[in-house]
Amino acid sequence: MKAVQVVGYDSPLEMTDVPAPEVTGPYDVLVRIGGAGVCRTDLHILEGQWKEKSGVTLPYTIGHENAGWVHAVGSAVTNVAEGDKVIVHPLITCGLCRACRFGDDVHCEQSRFPGIDTAGGYAEYLKTSARSVVKIDDSLVPADVAALADAGLTAYHAAAKAARRLRPGDKCVVIGAGGLGHIGIQVLKAITAAELIVVDRNPDAVKLAVSIGADHGVTGDGSQVSQVLDLTGGHGAETVIDFVGEGGATRDGIAMLRRAGDYHVVGYGENIDVPTIDIISTEINLIGNLVGSYNDLCELMVLAAQGRVKLHTARYRLEEFQTALDDLDAGRIRGRAILVP
Amino acid sequence: MKAVQVVGYDSPLEMTDVPAPEVTGPYDVLVRIGGAGVCRTDLHILEGQWKEKSGVTLPYTIGHENAGWVHAVGSAVTNVAEGDKVIVHPLITCGLCRACRFGDDVHCEQSRFPGIDTAGGYAEYLKTSARSVVKIDDSLVPADVAALADAGLTAYHAAAKAARRLRPGDKCVVIGAGGLGHIGIQVLKAITAAELIVVDRNPDAVKLAVSIGADHGVTGDGSQVSQVLDLTGGHGAETVIDFVGEGGATRDGIAMLRRAGDYHVVGYGENIDVPTIDIISTEINLIGNLVGSYNDLCELMVLAAQGRVKLHTARYRLEEFQTALDDLDAGRIRGRAILVP
Amino acid sequence: MKAVQVVGYDSPLEMTDVPAPEVTGPYDVLVRIGGAGVCRTDLHILEGQWKEKSGVTLPYTIGHENAGWVHAVGSAVTNVAEGDKVIVHPLITCGLCRACRFGDDVHCEQSRFPGIDTAGGYAEYLKTSARSVVKIDDSLVPADVAALADAGLTAYHAAAKAARRLRPGDKCVVIGAGGLGHIGIQVLKAITAAELIVVDRNPDAVKLAVSIGADHGVTGDGSQVSQVLDLTGGHGAETVIDFVGEGGATRDGIAMLRRAGDYHVVGYGENIDVPTIDIISTEINLIGNLVGSYNDLCELMVLAAQGRVKLHTARYRLEEFQTALDDLDAGRIRGRAILVP
Amino acid sequence: MKAVQVVGYDSPLEMTDVPAPEVTGPYDVLVRIGGAGVCRTDLHILEGQWKEKSGVTLPYTIGHENAGWVHAVGSAVTNVAEGDKVIVHPLITCGLCRACRFGDDVHCEQSRFPGIDTAGGYAEYLKTSARSVVKIDDSLVPADVAALADAGLTAYHAAAKAARRLRPGDKCVVIGAGGLGHIGIQVLKAITAAELIVVDRNPDAVKLAVSIGADHGVTGDGSQVSQVLDLTGGHGAETVIDFVGEGGATRDGIAMLRRAGDYHVVGYGENIDVPTIDIISTEINLIGNLVGSYNDLCELMVLAAQGRVKLHTARYRLEEFQTALDDLDAGRIRGRAILVP
Repeated sequence: MKAVQVVGYDSPLEMTDVPAPEVTGPYDVLVRIGGAGVCRTDLHILEGQWKEKSGVTLPYTIGHENAGWVHAVGSAVTNVAEGDKVIVHPLITCGLCRACRFGDDVHCEQSRFPGIDTAGGYAEYLKTSARSVVKIDDSLVPADVAALADAGLTAYHAAAKAARRLRPGDKCVVIGAGGLGHIGIQVLKAITAAELIVVDRNPDAVKLAVSIGADHGVTGDGSQVSQVLDLTGGHGAETVIDFVGEGGATRDGIAMLRRAGDYHVVGYGENIDVPTIDIISTEINLIGNLVGSYNDLCELMVLAAQGRVKLHTARYRLEEFQTALDDLDAGRIRGRAILVP
Repeated sequence: MKAVQVVGYDSPLEMTDVPAPEVTGPYDVLVRIGGAGVCRTDLHILEGQWKEKSGVTLPYTIGHENAGWVHAVGSAVTNVAEGDKVIVHPLITCGLCRACRFGDDVHCEQSRFPGIDTAGGYAEYLKTSARSVVKIDDSLVPADVAALADAGLTAYHAAAKAARRLRPGDKCVVIGAGGLGHIGIQVLKAITAAELIVVDRNPDAVKLAVSIGADHGVTGDGSQVSQVLDLTGGHGAETVIDFVGEGGATRDGIAMLRRAGDYHVVGYGENIDVPTIDIISTEINLIGNLVGSYNDLCELMVLAAQGRVKLHTARYRLEEFQTALDDLDAGRIRGRAILVP
Repeated sequence: MKAVQVVGYDSPLEMTDVPAPEVTGPYDVLVRIGGAGVCRTDLHILEGQWKEKSGVTLPYTIGHENAGWVHAVGSAVTNVAEGDKVIVHPLITCGLCRACRFGDDVHCEQSRFPGIDTAGGYAEYLKTSARSVVKIDDSLVPADVAALADAGLTAYHAAAKAARRLRPGDKCVVIGAGGLGHIGIQVLKAITAAELIVVDRNPDAVKLAVSIGADHGVTGDGSQVSQVLDLTGGHGAETVIDFVGEGGATRDGIAMLRRAGDYHVVGYGENIDVPTIDIISTEINLIGNLVGSYNDLCELMVLAAQGRVKLHTARYRLEEFQTALDDLDAGRIRGRAILVP
Repeated sequence: MKAVQVVGYDSPLEMTDVPAPEVTGPYDVLVRIGGAGVCRTDLHILEGQWKEKSGVTLPYTIGHENAGWVHAVGSAVTNVAEGDKVIVHPLITCGLCRACRFGDDVHCEQSRFPGIDTAGGYAEYLKTSARSVVKIDDSLVPADVAALADAGLTAYHAAAKAARRLRPGDKCVVIGAGGLGHIGIQVLKAITAAELIVVDRNPDAVKLAVSIGADHGVTGDGSQVSQVLDLTGGHGAETVIDFVGEGGATRDGIAMLRRAGDYHVVGYGENIDVPTIDIISTEINLIGNLVGSYNDLCELMVLAAQGRVKLHTARYRLEEFQTALDDLDAGRIRGRAILVP
């Protein structure tokens, strides 16, 4: 089958012909790819940022945001059958460790990550596990939802976790209205009545955020903290979800918090550097967020089927992978680029 | 009545004669002081560290850890009566703001803090509010429990909050086995079956911690992080409660965490400086802690009455206030110094 | 002032002239009534159902769903001022007992209930407490929201409590689309993405429910349990909120539950009679609900100000109290009847 | 191998020779039985009470409380290895349904129950799944802990769930100090500081309860409700855990509750018959409990290894199965009877 592979760091991806994966284990599931999201992480992989962390042997097939149709299943698979339309959770997890047994799949002690440390979805077929496939509604198209598998799931997880504390009248700041923030806003609108304040440096992103339901848009021109304080009666917001995590966003985000508030870290890049006295004197919490569980992905697919979460996509044929990556790198993509075999 | 007052920053406290407080408001409660804890914060007040923050007008009576007997009550007070033995919650709160209405008294929008920004308990009588007095068990002696009003309450609040996530088999690291840590360990033993690992630089403090129930003692000689990792199968602990917050404790504490773990900030001094990627890749939480609520103090008094929380105290007559402060400053006090009028 | 009073059980209410209430305590608040809801409980009071429970001395002024403007305040009141537009929480609570200190005002150990056991709001003025008045948004009109003070608050409390467990894809059954159910549906739509199935015997009520956002309407014609099971893939619903509680609703509601589901009791009348083996073999929960807290009422007022919760009302002049009660008793009122002085 | 089988309802069990189970699936685990608990449910099976519910085909091997050593494992098993000492969770669960993915194994949509609907542990070997075996501490002996696999797990699950709401000073009533209650009391002492009030009809059971840590013992002589009210200042208890569920226990248990309290149903037999007005006017909760999850069993094994939960056992050789059942039926066993092959 055709597959797009990493053949070296700092060298371009190459399309090649590789044997299609086969079912070898009882819980194996082969997915015929309907769409594979092109993610900024793919660029970072090529820059070598994941080289040591993943320890993957080159060449290997890239692509970690996948959806399609079940092509074949192992002998013990009971939750999907050939022909089912599915989205693929980014991790293959063991199901036996304590974290898996609590539903915290992301903290599985033995997980693998197709597209990062084993063969991914820039290809015609992907091998994953019964524990990783979520059946999707008839109304959904794999290529349309593929990018929700990782970016969308991360945004859903953070927004849903944050929402557990949000009550009507509470204020929630979303920093960053890009790919993840865009999903996060839609999720928050669907499951809370909190007042949403969206902060972004890009005025167009702010406008878009307001058009999909943000109650207030704040352009990050240097006065964003004081604007948020003004919008919150000087108290700050009960919750801040930071999808940026660099360029000063962490300092801003913490400064926008109300006493006893929650600052959710999702985006990353810079260090959080905060005096402990500021943490204790206002009793704030800094909360990490990492991808999401299998059940989180099921819930996100419900919101997608209900039309409550939508994602703008730009499709490319698999052969056009280089154009897609170039367009992403150059900021020419609105929403997400999707490779379709 | 006799009262010990701050008369200037960087000058010693002075004992003087001041009018005894009187009931003027419907919820006022006058407490005849049975004991007032001498706290490191009192030293910091004299150094001027609270000068701007509190905005208090000098001279004023110091002392924020108080217990005694109800001497008089306002017309609307129904929860205590003259003669009742009480401990005094450190804050006077409004009872009307949203935080108070949720029981988060500490985040009251209009609180006052006797001993910090208004007259405190280094005196014969203290004026506080019906909302601040907790009746204590017949078996308890005010001078014995006074120091639980603030230091003990802070430790209880953090330990009880941490305990909500701890299950049998989980590991909980306590950094710092001094005054607060000592209480925290006793609280954790009373309400969880988690395995307690106590870390302190002082080998004697570690020994004491083990004698009151810590499952493991770790002397902080530079290898404390690797010792904790060894004790937790290389995974780290589900929870770390840091009663130190300086001298590298924050970096250590975060390094001792298991994936998805909680690091509780209680002690303070240094900055937390941590890459956002470390927070998201392990999905850890950094959780602030500040004093405790009125109901927290009620619960701590239950543990004290049950004999589950004990505090070593050294009593001084009120007139000996300078000796008590000097002994505290010189590290000559085991447990807490208490002034008894 | 004019007031409508209970002068005897099984005899009609009478309008009479009584002295206006005055501020006597520091936390007293006098409210000039803008609207008083006419509730089925008022009919029950006249039938004598509350005679022993309330122990009230006749004659007294009835009316427990009140909103209006602050007319005068006691010396210690800081949260409202003369002229403020307010809705009145139905209970006057002590603020000092453990329940009040946790924000569970409804379980206050010393509460009073104007309109039930002390003078209520079928009058020109009402005396209540600073702890009971919630400022409302400029855009809201007291007579429009008065009925949210009790009926609406009860529905909000149950719906918000239920919503804490509901995730996208979960099913929530609402039994009864009358006054409370109507509010409950709007609240659930505002704060969850759960699929709402509304069951009512009255086809018109079912239609109305669907028009305000219910995903499925089920007419209770005897097949309601099997219809719900069909709509839930045979599993039953994660949550059932029963606003009826009589005529077989409890048996139906429990039969509609999924394993580990929550059945919320709000309406009342009949006995719940269920084999313990049915409770344990499916591990279901039967959850009581009673009015709501002060903070609940604040949150409901946010939803009202956002236009997310609306209530149809029919206004009557205070003098027309008998017509209003007669119309209620005869089922001639859509939404709620409101008396306006 | 030797196995004790149900050969007909209302006829005695028979020991026979059957083929030892073999590994056929990738997640299969064979356990060499070290001890199998003799449970009252085994008597009920013989009486035919489970005939229709389980649909099992006779003859089959009985026994659902098992512990021993891993004898062989399937190809995909990573959590245990041959020779490991294990206790066996009573259910074999799918690991793929939503309940399993949340860790609520007990609500698995496709579970099997060895000893009830497939071959159990009154035998030399048992076939179960990787998802069902919990490695136990070196210090524990299979025959000593086998009865914790089901009876103990049920008690742990209910006590741990109840404990999440219990704070120092809260009162917790335990109804029934027999097998399950005995474990429940030890668990509650290990993880809460709540005041335990134990109610049993048998004065010896009450004495035993007090000897293992109950704060108050109440003999159920008809005055048990008023005794509990006296012990709780007339308010009732925050939590009641009912391990009996028959003979009036449910009515008593609900009558012992404080406002907003939780009544946990564990034992079963009679109907709960309670007016809805009693549920809503005090806002109480009736909470079902069913066995426990895999992670619950891991936590219980931690408490057992720490010596915090102990169970008195009487051992019988497997051949003596009839004597063991007769002794159980006649009330001659203190603690639990264990069959050892």
